[in-house]
Amino acid sequence: MKPSIPKGTRDFLPDDVFKRQYIFNTIRKVYEKFGFLPIETPAMESLQTLTGKYGEEGDKLLFKILNNGDFLKNADPEALKNHSSDALIPSIAKRGLRYDLTVPFARFVVMHQNELAFPFKRYQMQPVWRADRPQKSRYQEFWQCDADVIGSASLLYEAEMIQMLYEVFHNLGIKVIIRMNNRKILQGIAEVFGIENYFMDLTIAIDKLEKIGQELVIQELVQKGITEKTAREVLNLVEHSDPDTLKTWLQTSKTGMEGLRDLESISTLLSGHPAWSSVKIHVALARGLNYYTGCIFEVIADTAIYPDLKIGSLSGGGRYDDLTSIFGMPGVSGVGISFGADRIYDAMLHLNLFPPSIRKGPLILFLPMDSTFVPYAFAQVTHLRDSGIPADIFPEGAKIQKQMKYANATGVPYIAIIGEKEFESSLLTLKNMQTGQQSEVNIDQLIEILKSA
Amino acid sequence: MKPSIPKGTRDFLPDDVFKRQYIFNTIRKVYEKFGFLPIETPAMESLQTLTGKYGEEGDKLLFKILNNGDFLKNADPEALKNHSSDALIPSIAKRGLRYDLTVPFARFVVMHQNELAFPFKRYQMQPVWRADRPQKSRYQEFWQCDADVIGSASLLYEAEMIQMLYEVFHNLGIKVIIRMNNRKILQGIAEVFGIENYFMDLTIAIDKLEKIGQELVIQELVQKGITEKTAREVLNLVEHSDPDTLKTWLQTSKTGMEGLRDLESISTLLSGHPAWSSVKIHVALARGLNYYTGCIFEVIADTAIYPDLKIGSLSGGGRYDDLTSIFGMPGVSGVGISFGADRIYDAMLHLNLFPPSIRKGPLILFLPMDSTFVPYAFAQVTHLRDSGIPADIFPEGAKIQKQMKYANATGVPYIAIIGEKEFESSLLTLKNMQTGQQSEVNIDQLIEILKSA
Repeated sequence: MKPSIPKGTRDFLPDDVFKRQYIFNTIRKVYEKFGFLPIETPAMESLQTLTGKYGEEGDKLLFKILNNGDFLKNADPEALKNHSSDALIPSIAKRGLRYDLTVPFARFVVMHQNELAFPFKRYQMQPVWRADRPQKSRYQEFWQCDADVIGSASLLYEAEMIQMLYEVFHNLGIKVIIRMNNRKILQGIAEVFGIENYFMDLTIAIDKLEKIGQELVIQELVQKGITEKTAREVLNLVEHSDPDTLKTWLQTSKTGMEGLRDLESISTLLSGHPAWSSVKIHVALARGLNYYTGCIFEVIADTAIYPDLKIGSLSGGGRYDDLTSIFGMPGVSGVGISFGADRIYDAMLHLNLFPPSIRKGPLILFLPMDSTFVPYAFAQVTHLRDSGIPADIFPEGAKIQKQMKYANATGVPYIAIIGEKEFESSLLTLKNMQTGQQSEVNIDQLIEILKSA
Repeated sequence: MKPSIPKGTRDFLPDDVFKRQYIFNTIRKVYEKFGFLPIETPAMESLQTLTGKYGEEGDKLLFKILNNGDFLKNADPEALKNHSSDALIPSIAKRGLRYDLTVPFARFVVMHQNELAFPFKRYQMQPVWRADRPQKSRYQEFWQCDADVIGSASLLYEAEMIQMLYEVFHNLGIKVIIRMNNRKILQGIAEVFGIENYFMDLTIAIDKLEKIGQELVIQELVQKGITEKTAREVLNLVEHSDPDTLKTWLQTSKTGMEGLRDLESISTLLSGHPAWSSVKIHVALARGLNYYTGCIFEVIADTAIYPDLKIGSLSGGGRYDDLTSIFGMPGVSGVGISFGADRIYDAMLHLNLFPPSIRKGPLILFLPMDSTFVPYAFAQVTHLRDSGIPADIFPEGAKIQKQMKYANATGVPYIAIIGEKEFESSLLTLKNMQTGQQSEVNIDQLIEILKSA
């Protein structure tokens, strides 16, 4: 049997893991500095928790777990008879794999509300699963790194989200633009044009602007029932206006003006902070998810600096006023952001931004020239390890060529050769694999060298 | 809808996560010091990879993932007609959740053999899923922390495994006994008594000795076809003999003598090392898994020290000579160990071994006495964060009682009160929440205090 893994999934080799850990640790450090605490939720959730939360398309992309045992015993006989897969699911699968970290977080908050202090600031870095068609930079198993504050409507948290977005990418070395908008502004525009009943259609269409262009978006809006004239005016406003222009347009919309004031408050809180210089008010930012109600964010790599990098958004987020109500806890406002670790990884690889120092692994490999020296070499290695130095040994007295080949393949920075001479003199022949330099040292000198390596 | 999570799964709150990270980090640090490199494999594997690797019982405990889309379209019509759940599975589910880390590792090694340098030392710390009946300390989602070396038969690695087992538990503060045996010794005993055809029955029965007692094990062996006299003699030998007694018994068995010599070599390699004092040769150790062929290990908490701790084995492992052959790569020897993070967690909680210092979280919480002070307080907090200090702020000018209640609930060690006086003097009123001590400091003094906190 030739082994394989499911399409859209990946194995990570040590070098991949080190790079990924570098991204995770960078994000974790920023989150913790801002007072966010880690939680974890199970990979499997009840399908009841997941179904209906991600739209019809999302329901299709959920991975469902077959009930164990004789699952057909309780299968819906009607659905079986009609060969209706969709209708059969609830009776043969009661669990599904986590699709994102937001819905499990809402479920978590409601279940644990009496154990938490609000505003509750949590971060969560775990894989999620979606049965999307696999393609470049899109996987069926991928990692999200979310931070959310729940239980406060304070705009201070929007300011913190922007600072964190800025700091993470700054620390990773990626120059980004943080796009910000407010759903209330879009709602105000809809009000002013008398199309508030088309608000969801409007956001969904606007969200596609960059992908499909103005003409196709107008077509879509016209199909939904908006006149072409209105559609054109709305898109013009959305695409080309700054907050000042908007202020005159939105005078008559309480919600719209509130949206503008929100942005002003955030700007005040961040005045003088380096993060603010990366923020661009982008009225055409709509974001597809329907639970956002206030500020929304999207981070893209700065295409002026990286014209070749075609990678989409690296992070996003926003405020939601009622996420937990689906689980019976209404009226709790929250705001959150999410980093897509896999896209960031692809971008960093493309831009060659991983520092070489992130490779962990043994600092030194001992090569016993003969099997009789193995116990002696092993004792030296043990001594190094007891001193806190990651060290390793080739396990037998193989030919020097074979051992050197192994040393080269592992990329270890130092080797120590243990032969007759070394065994008798208690000195080690140390070789720096990068410079090729060789020297004779005793074990204490070796510890010194490796500790400062 | 009242939210819930699937039985046998758990949410982890921040304090749980910190404790779990402490265990993971302790294990990771030891693994890396010994030259092991991290890999990760996907949660979903092809059912083809998993099925048949864990025995009939294991196949039942695999979580199977329903194919997406119209899965009934390709469903086996015979199985559907007969309402045969087991027969239906292959046609409606092609993926399953990882059941352990060993089989995915074997699959990984075969798939990536050309990218790896052998002997390849890998560690892997990921969740696994089993549809076991949930009970105390047994979950359907739990974490394994494995280290394996593959591609060498050297007993040096057995010595390293013992050192790592010892060091991890030493660093966690749990006094343990590392039981060691060699499957070859059990095989030798079977040979000497002429029951080598019953070898698997013998190991499976011996494995239950501690749980069900000698008499029931003898009953089981007799049922399998071994005479009661032989069964009693074998059990006596297994339960009460030391290596010296065994040496006289096993003279005629090449395999048995090899097993004894293996143990001697390991003892020589570890002579003088503190790990060796925790090792007990335990001939009654058999381990259920059928892929072990050489040394086997099991770690239990030292019941002489912890008479109240009933928790089973905390870790185990052993050598296998042919794990990768199922995936088409025969003749590759390996040895590995696995820590059960969840049992270790339960043991450490019971023994109160988690140091209080593992709680991460903001060092200080700013309390603005009025909303007008929020921007000023936020600027101070930002300054602290820019200095690398995890800090937080209550987001609005609520009543002092409400803010203090929040501070207490979060367990933050320091608070800084920002009122009229503090705003005008540029001093902060700092309170140590543990001692209750209050002082007036400027921001630079505060940074000093928190950096040494």
